[in-house]
Amino acid sequence: MAESQTSQDVVHPHPYVPRDLNLPGYIPCFLSQSNILSIYASFTISVFAVTWIFSGRLKKTTVDRLLIFWWAFTGLTHFILEGYFAFTPEFYKDNTGFYLAEVWKEYSKGDSRYAARDAGVVTVEGLTAVLEGPASLLAVYAIATGKPYSYILQFAVSLGQLYGTAVYFITAILEGDNFSTNSFYYYAYYIGANFSWIVIPSIISIRCWRKIVAAVQVQNQTKKTKVR
Amino acid sequence: MAESQTSQDVVHPHPYVPRDLNLPGYIPCFLSQSNILSIYASFTISVFAVTWIFSGRLKKTTVDRLLIFWWAFTGLTHFILEGYFAFTPEFYKDNTGFYLAEVWKEYSKGDSRYAARDAGVVTVEGLTAVLEGPASLLAVYAIATGKPYSYILQFAVSLGQLYGTAVYFITAILEGDNFSTNSFYYYAYYIGANFSWIVIPSIISIRCWRKIVAAVQVQNQTKKTKVR
Repeated sequence: MAESQTSQDVVHPHPYVPRDLNLPGYIPCFLSQSNILSIYASFTISVFAVTWIFSGRLKKTTVDRLLIFWWAFTGLTHFILEGYFAFTPEFYKDNTGFYLAEVWKEYSKGDSRYAARDAGVVTVEGLTAVLEGPASLLAVYAIATGKPYSYILQFAVSLGQLYGTAVYFITAILEGDNFSTNSFYYYAYYIGANFSWIVIPSIISIRCWRKIVAAVQVQNQTKKTKVR
Repeated sequence: MAESQTSQDVVHPHPYVPRDLNLPGYIPCFLSQSNILSIYASFTISVFAVTWIFSGRLKKTTVDRLLIFWWAFTGLTHFILEGYFAFTPEFYKDNTGFYLAEVWKEYSKGDSRYAARDAGVVTVEGLTAVLEGPASLLAVYAIATGKPYSYILQFAVSLGQLYGTAVYFITAILEGDNFSTNSFYYYAYYIGANFSWIVIPSIISIRCWRKIVAAVQVQNQTKKTKVR
């Protein structure tokens, strides 16, 4: 099996589409798909458990507790997983079985622009990692401590996520939408894995918009009352 | 002079970099640089005059009057100028001297990715035209009529402009930053023409952030007072 060969001297054909994509030094995945996914699932469950216990002690509402989980989860994903990709152009050459490299080798089956270092993908992932990663973790702190900038910060990060996802999908369509090894990877990785980052930021930005508009209305009414 | 030939049968060498960029059917600019710029300057002055008179009648503050001008100017630029580019892949073949095609033929001397139909550039311009254009014009209405969503809308559009500009410049760097005919066009068009869309959205988003945080603080205090 090619997977068991680790020597750099052996030329491994890559599994990605388009087939003529040139990836000299490519080393196949060491971990299976189920291993990679179960590690990410374990990470998600751990983040949920830690944030749920933590937010329970702070006596937060259920909505705030779910938001604290989301911002911790998405912030760590942006910072660690996407940060690794953005600053590691040669992850596909990794021959140590390092988990973060394995994730991107596997995800590239859904979108080979990751292995191919497409400028649009690297830009979106870089902005997500550097700006939205830390900002998401700041949102955890802002919700936990009830900061007045909590809504506008969550709105800003959600809008950034939505803009990034829009750039990600639209550039793919314009470039021919031919980056998936097969339709399973297309729907499971390219569509499925990004779906949460369309739905959840949409819900959060609508909620924050409403909360902010309500606050401005209260302020306007307070001013009017004072004028009277 | 090549500029005076309009027949499609004549092959015109394009002035763009990289030199090997293939643009079959390219027709040179009919208008001079100074003509193109003075038409855009006249448009800007007209928008300023109309919005300044209009906002003066509404007895708006100077800041609100400047904002109304900015949102009208940037909204029309997004919608008309960038909208034309986003949905006209073959503008460089235009042989009628149509102004909007002339603008993009000229601007491509600063960034040939426009003529080359780079996916990242088309995506950013498309999102800008379709989402930020109408939203900017809505901001004119929101400021003029004192809507409570005025700040959050201006914040959202400004953030979209900043994200778009970031994608625009970072993809250029990742793709080698070699799209300008010479350093004059690089600084005048690529840097100069985009500079306002870094500075002004930054100022507006900071202002809106502060206004919103202040409103949320007032609301929180009102709630506390009621609880007492």
